[in-house]
Amino acid sequence: MNTASLFSDMLQTITERGRRFLSFGAREDTLDPLAAIEAHCETLLSSRGEASGMALAKDILDRWRTFDTEKQREFMRMLLARFGPKTERLEAAIDTYRASQSPKALLELHVAAEPRRQELIRRLNLAPNGIATLVAMREVLLKLKEEDRDLEAVDADFAHLFGSWFNRGFLVLRPISWSTPADILEKIIRYEAVHHIGGWDELRRRLAPEDRRCFAFFHPQLPDEPLIFVEVALTRDMPSRIDELLREDRAPIRAADATTAVFYSISNCQEGLRGISFGNFLIKQVVEDLRRDLPKLDTFVTLSPVPGFAAWLARERRAEASDAFGDAEKARLAVLDTEGWADDEEIGATVQPTMTAAAAWYFLRARDAKGRIVDPVARFHLGNGARLERINFLADRSGRAMRQAHGLMVNYLYKLDDIETNHEAFAGRNEVVTTPAIRRLVPTDRGGRSLVPLVGGGTEDRDEKKKGRRELSA
Amino acid sequence: MNTASLFSDMLQTITERGRRFLSFGAREDTLDPLAAIEAHCETLLSSRGEASGMALAKDILDRWRTFDTEKQREFMRMLLARFGPKTERLEAAIDTYRASQSPKALLELHVAAEPRRQELIRRLNLAPNGIATLVAMREVLLKLKEEDRDLEAVDADFAHLFGSWFNRGFLVLRPISWSTPADILEKIIRYEAVHHIGGWDELRRRLAPEDRRCFAFFHPQLPDEPLIFVEVALTRDMPSRIDELLREDRAPIRAADATTAVFYSISNCQEGLRGISFGNFLIKQVVEDLRRDLPKLDTFVTLSPVPGFAAWLARERRAEASDAFGDAEKARLAVLDTEGWADDEEIGATVQPTMTAAAAWYFLRARDAKGRIVDPVARFHLGNGARLERINFLADRSGRAMRQAHGLMVNYLYKLDDIETNHEAFAGRNEVVTTPAIRRLVPTDRGGRSLVPLVGGGTEDRDEKKKGRRELSA
Amino acid sequence: MNTASLFSDMLQTITERGRRFLSFGAREDTLDPLAAIEAHCETLLSSRGEASGMALAKDILDRWRTFDTEKQREFMRMLLARFGPKTERLEAAIDTYRASQSPKALLELHVAAEPRRQELIRRLNLAPNGIATLVAMREVLLKLKEEDRDLEAVDADFAHLFGSWFNRGFLVLRPISWSTPADILEKIIRYEAVHHIGGWDELRRRLAPEDRRCFAFFHPQLPDEPLIFVEVALTRDMPSRIDELLREDRAPIRAADATTAVFYSISNCQEGLRGISFGNFLIKQVVEDLRRDLPKLDTFVTLSPVPGFAAWLARERRAEASDAFGDAEKARLAVLDTEGWADDEEIGATVQPTMTAAAAWYFLRARDAKGRIVDPVARFHLGNGARLERINFLADRSGRAMRQAHGLMVNYLYKLDDIETNHEAFAGRNEVVTTPAIRRLVPTDRGGRSLVPLVGGGTEDRDEKKKGRRELSA
Amino acid sequence: MNTASLFSDMLQTITERGRRFLSFGAREDTLDPLAAIEAHCETLLSSRGEASGMALAKDILDRWRTFDTEKQREFMRMLLARFGPKTERLEAAIDTYRASQSPKALLELHVAAEPRRQELIRRLNLAPNGIATLVAMREVLLKLKEEDRDLEAVDADFAHLFGSWFNRGFLVLRPISWSTPADILEKIIRYEAVHHIGGWDELRRRLAPEDRRCFAFFHPQLPDEPLIFVEVALTRDMPSRIDELLREDRAPIRAADATTAVFYSISNCQEGLRGISFGNFLIKQVVEDLRRDLPKLDTFVTLSPVPGFAAWLARERRAEASDAFGDAEKARLAVLDTEGWADDEEIGATVQPTMTAAAAWYFLRARDAKGRIVDPVARFHLGNGARLERINFLADRSGRAMRQAHGLMVNYLYKLDDIETNHEAFAGRNEVVTTPAIRRLVPTDRGGRSLVPLVGGGTEDRDEKKKGRRELSA
Repeated sequence: MNTASLFSDMLQTITERGRRFLSFGAREDTLDPLAAIEAHCETLLSSRGEASGMALAKDILDRWRTFDTEKQREFMRMLLARFGPKTERLEAAIDTYRASQSPKALLELHVAAEPRRQELIRRLNLAPNGIATLVAMREVLLKLKEEDRDLEAVDADFAHLFGSWFNRGFLVLRPISWSTPADILEKIIRYEAVHHIGGWDELRRRLAPEDRRCFAFFHPQLPDEPLIFVEVALTRDMPSRIDELLREDRAPIRAADATTAVFYSISNCQEGLRGISFGNFLIKQVVEDLRRDLPKLDTFVTLSPVPGFAAWLARERRAEASDAFGDAEKARLAVLDTEGWADDEEIGATVQPTMTAAAAWYFLRARDAKGRIVDPVARFHLGNGARLERINFLADRSGRAMRQAHGLMVNYLYKLDDIETNHEAFAGRNEVVTTPAIRRLVPTDRGGRSLVPLVGGGTEDRDEKKKGRRELSA
Repeated sequence: MNTASLFSDMLQTITERGRRFLSFGAREDTLDPLAAIEAHCETLLSSRGEASGMALAKDILDRWRTFDTEKQREFMRMLLARFGPKTERLEAAIDTYRASQSPKALLELHVAAEPRRQELIRRLNLAPNGIATLVAMREVLLKLKEEDRDLEAVDADFAHLFGSWFNRGFLVLRPISWSTPADILEKIIRYEAVHHIGGWDELRRRLAPEDRRCFAFFHPQLPDEPLIFVEVALTRDMPSRIDELLREDRAPIRAADATTAVFYSISNCQEGLRGISFGNFLIKQVVEDLRRDLPKLDTFVTLSPVPGFAAWLARERRAEASDAFGDAEKARLAVLDTEGWADDEEIGATVQPTMTAAAAWYFLRARDAKGRIVDPVARFHLGNGARLERINFLADRSGRAMRQAHGLMVNYLYKLDDIETNHEAFAGRNEVVTTPAIRRLVPTDRGGRSLVPLVGGGTEDRDEKKKGRRELSA
Repeated sequence: MNTASLFSDMLQTITERGRRFLSFGAREDTLDPLAAIEAHCETLLSSRGEASGMALAKDILDRWRTFDTEKQREFMRMLLARFGPKTERLEAAIDTYRASQSPKALLELHVAAEPRRQELIRRLNLAPNGIATLVAMREVLLKLKEEDRDLEAVDADFAHLFGSWFNRGFLVLRPISWSTPADILEKIIRYEAVHHIGGWDELRRRLAPEDRRCFAFFHPQLPDEPLIFVEVALTRDMPSRIDELLREDRAPIRAADATTAVFYSISNCQEGLRGISFGNFLIKQVVEDLRRDLPKLDTFVTLSPVPGFAAWLARERRAEASDAFGDAEKARLAVLDTEGWADDEEIGATVQPTMTAAAAWYFLRARDAKGRIVDPVARFHLGNGARLERINFLADRSGRAMRQAHGLMVNYLYKLDDIETNHEAFAGRNEVVTTPAIRRLVPTDRGGRSLVPLVGGGTEDRDEKKKGRRELSA
Repeated sequence: MNTASLFSDMLQTITERGRRFLSFGAREDTLDPLAAIEAHCETLLSSRGEASGMALAKDILDRWRTFDTEKQREFMRMLLARFGPKTERLEAAIDTYRASQSPKALLELHVAAEPRRQELIRRLNLAPNGIATLVAMREVLLKLKEEDRDLEAVDADFAHLFGSWFNRGFLVLRPISWSTPADILEKIIRYEAVHHIGGWDELRRRLAPEDRRCFAFFHPQLPDEPLIFVEVALTRDMPSRIDELLREDRAPIRAADATTAVFYSISNCQEGLRGISFGNFLIKQVVEDLRRDLPKLDTFVTLSPVPGFAAWLARERRAEASDAFGDAEKARLAVLDTEGWADDEEIGATVQPTMTAAAAWYFLRARDAKGRIVDPVARFHLGNGARLERINFLADRSGRAMRQAHGLMVNYLYKLDDIETNHEAFAGRNEVVTTPAIRRLVPTDRGGRSLVPLVGGGTEDRDEKKKGRRELSA
């Protein structure tokens, strides 16, 4: 028996003993399950909760796990209704604050405004493996709140605490390799969201060759649960097709000969941590890690999907007057409606310049209703300080990539010395940093119309950001 | 070079590279250091902080470490003045809330009332080893706020975040033994606060024999810093003198023969975590751990100091009319003013019954202005659900123990099945659970006077609790 | 980069630098590869080998790996011819010994008789990962010596050193579970020799459920290479069919409810370690390990194949006069020649008693030319002190089991308190310990013929033992 | 309870159960202890030993540990007398070999000449922690054989097996630092043999500063027992006095600024492994390790004692006609007999040139009776391929260094590209590689006498080598 299981057994013992203390007696079993769990939550927040916190927390989480969706919804409504701030204290705090804006009054106001849920969630974390259940709980909550917007307030409390607990300062970067424990690798297969992993043999091809790397962030309290991971290929060139990296019969190169590290897949793993941002830190730390290990590496680049391209293109093609292109281009793009167009080299050669120019427009000019660049993956990498480096025609012929982007992929370049400036340009001035070659594909003016809606362009949209995406990129 | 140092070097590289991005330029150096650090703090909170957070955070913490006390005080005042909530947003939130107490309005009120300091502290935690510096920062702050009560509001933010980050769910219990790394053992020597450890040989005697144990809580992000530790002796009886446990020439027993585990020293290590409570969890988990390892153990008990006894006794002796004892007792206790009384067995025999009875009164009847039991160590153990088990006369003849308690020590008994009930009695009804023998030492009534001031007796006093003590017990 | 790979890189550097020292110059390349490797072997044994041993050893092993089978044979012949004892020194030592049998003369004789190969092999072990190559080398050698019996002398040196290096005292027992690194699990799939593992899903079913266990021996210098492993099922009964344990849709039981541990597969992993015995220690240590972890376990039993049964039965059926059974039995067994007999329940019911009785005879009476019990798996378990517990009819209907044993399997029982006695009975007196029920199946006398050839019965046969088997049992 | 102790407990259980099997019965206790242990040794070698090897081995080692010195001597004599080769088998093997020198006959001769002790020692290694006791056993044996030369044959068997088991290929290099477990550091204090470590504070000064390093070899089966360790100082110059490295008030430099690594102390730890050579490998691997970690390092050098110098100098001064120097030099050296000469700077200035020249002669010309360079530390480093780099006058003023070497120390330089050549020069041609400056101190000829006895100069002396030294150098 290993130490870890010893420890978990021990926790089991502590909490089971604790449970015996929970002398709610026979009466309790006649209670409505929701009334019962509410009573337990109140007890956990009381001074008695200090003595038997682990047992109480475990009990509540165990009960919750037996709930069906409807009961879980009622539980969340209960957290909303019964575990908000104490109204009287809050009212008094507001009055005091309005009377005198002293530090003390402000502090009391802040404390009084904190929903009791937050302390409740903190105490639920006392349960053995509590954090895992809390993350699962929020996964449910995220679904529930789509239909019940009031639950946003409950979710805000989970998000607030998770943001604090999963602070980058507490995360650990670990390499994932073919000698990683199988139970973790199993999750890599399951969580991979960009380029599907068909099974263990395919996973092996992504991890075992010496020109492959993979890294994940972990939280010390969830040692078997990757939070986010990135797959890396070491190459001698910036790749223009995903097949160069993933085809079965490719010949690996020596790691020491590689000059380029390609981030070709980044996947978030925990739906319950949606909106807690890790990807930014992950890429930067992996870059440093690789540079240290392989000093010859001088290029860090992605090969990324363009998930919003096909939908945007369809809209533009349908539009009476597109800013992005004229009728000639529309005519040339008509072939995209033909099944199998990609298999015909001649057609490909014809459509390529038009589609590439359209893509350049898509990145540089097209903006959504909020004035933001349309593509979510582009927002992620440009926001991290990368540069849009190259547009690759027919780079991914998988069904999904054909549907989402007519097979298009792009490279984003991470140049360490420019990251800060690029980030400033994008975050501060809504500018897309790219190469002259791509810039030339977009006419500087088309009949004098102002193409970029500037209003609100630089503002950050919190909600959108929080929506997050399991499939991040690259 | 080991992995840990590799990793720390890597962090170094990342943050130094990041620092180069911080192009505040020459102008900055002409700034007042406080203005400069404030500017950095603002940047860290801006969107730019997202791209270069680690570098910025490190920079701020590095600057802070160069500050003298006066500058540190000014820094804290700046946090108070400039990084509170945004007033306009808060005012608006209050208005909205007063108009409609919707969940959304409540949420916004809570968010608006949160001082910007909290997010600032969270982001400072991005720096390599940030948490250690933040804990050190609060150690300073605790001193500063003694003279500058406004800083309480700043401290509340640190305490709030530390309470969340050092949540029991994230702590790890690790045994401390003679094969623990020396840099950690060095800290055990330094932090021991109850029974001084004179050097490595003495430490070895407390850790190496098979009838000794030691356990500490650690946080994953501070792997070399014990947060709190407890020293345990395995014995065949409940000890009545500290010398039984610590004298150099004692003969160890076989661990498997022990029936009793004695917690004879509990020390908090991090002054900067004062008020974040671990001791309660520590004792309970160690009890479970030991039971599992040594199934023969059936008694878990402390041998604890009584730090408030001598002072209280002096007050009672000075008082015109003491509730605790009459003139005959006072006369008998007069000998305590004689130097060396403890060396005279005859005197000892005379004074023992009186002193023991006085001690029983001290625990069972005496209360402080807030209606609480006087002794802080007693409050800790009784609050954890222990029972006052025995009063030991002349149990510790060290200078400190003689000064604080005329050499008195007591045993508190942790009986797992009674912990919950005991805790309820103490926390809920302000009752001290003890043995009939001790109870008999206190007359049930002395002339009809009500002995226990009941007002406020059961309320918890937050401030006092937060004052904490490095020397906890046992 | 992890510590392990750091270290291996470092070794790489050391040995590559070392290699540059090996200034055999251009001349060497014109040498016959065999002459060249012989020269290197001589250098490695010289004092120069002390300074550059790691580089030289690596060089030799690298060369060897490029050899084809014929060159490898010549290499082994060279070890035989050129790296035996020094003849003159040996002759002198014999003379001295014959003159005076002093301890000193004996010591010199032993040293002089040691082939120089042994020191050569020891020094080859200096190469990074040398032990792995040496084990691979012996795997080749075992094949070569089948046709070239002189190589037995070379193999004896490898076997001698491996016996010393893989001494039980140096092996480490490690549990194999679903959280074991994938590169090790991949080898479990490959090395499983008793009940084929079809892929990762099947492996998961053998490792992940809580009523399954697996343990392997490892050598510290080969941390990723299991040497031998055993698969264990936790059950509530002694199983009579392999299907009870392996079928996909079975429902796991709680580990804590199990009373019986079934060793249903033991596989040796390293052909190059054939004849180095681990299985004996493995089973005993696993029994202790399981008892400690799960105190409710009281029965330790195998479910084992009977690989020699069908061949023996065929011989008996062909024999004019079988000791084992008469014509009636022969007639009843004739049905075994019919394809698909096992699918017919009626036939099964008819043939079962006869086959079971024949099997009892096979274990209790039948002996091979050397007077040993015929079945190799039986020899292994009985030699370890187990008892033949039950004969299971049609217990494994896989193709191989039907061919080797007409589907028969048996249980061997490991009863800790009887192991020593059982071992003595078997090893010392050639007695098979079994149950009365099985014993009753064999007539005590059949016409007065002495059934057991006693000559040589108890002697150990070294060659046979060395033949080893990857498929050990269970 | 940690995994290691779990495991050791388990072994305990296995072996105690095994011990119950050892049914020697009451009769045994009446045996002479030596007869009893001999009987157990015979059983361990029998087939019964295969079933209960761990228990038997533990029993024998436990008994041995209770023996006093005389009993231990008798035990060793018993191993000599009763566990040598089987005489008849050996005689037969000799006859067969003399008749036909076939590989098979040679193999049988080697096997027959192997003392049964070797297999016995291998099986004793089965006991839990057996290897530690076997090493302790040899430590005793080494002392015994000084007076009982016949035991050399028994020691040869221990040495043979230890040479195989402690093969460099099985050793692990681990850094020793201030975060190494205290039980290991305690041994570093104890085993340090060159520059005494006065206590934990002094140890801290040798390990904690960032310009200090320490490395040790470990065997996987003795994870808490360093076998040999080297202490390293990182500096900017080759030091000329030990005080530069060890004085309390020195200011550490940044590790990254160091250009020079100074090996200033190498100590063997296990007397029972005397003659098993590790030092050679240790230095080379540490050099590689440091180069990798600190690429700026370009000089690897020792600061070493000269333990044989004072004794040699005294002999030369007493000699009627010294080759090393004439009467003028003798007269100048007379001051060495004066107490406190070293404190007088003027005297020092006078004696320095003479003593330095004498030292040069001591290294370059003086040879012992076997034709070897006199100084054992010089033999070690020169044999490893180092170069004698500088002679340092009054470099160590500790009592021991003054007695052994009049305070002299020397630097040996390890230049990786020259190691092989230097080693060849020394090992092959008995040449001391040094600098021109030192070479110039020795007249090429002094009256035509041949100074270096060449006979036997290059031969390796096994016995001397085996004598080993705990104090190796540096």
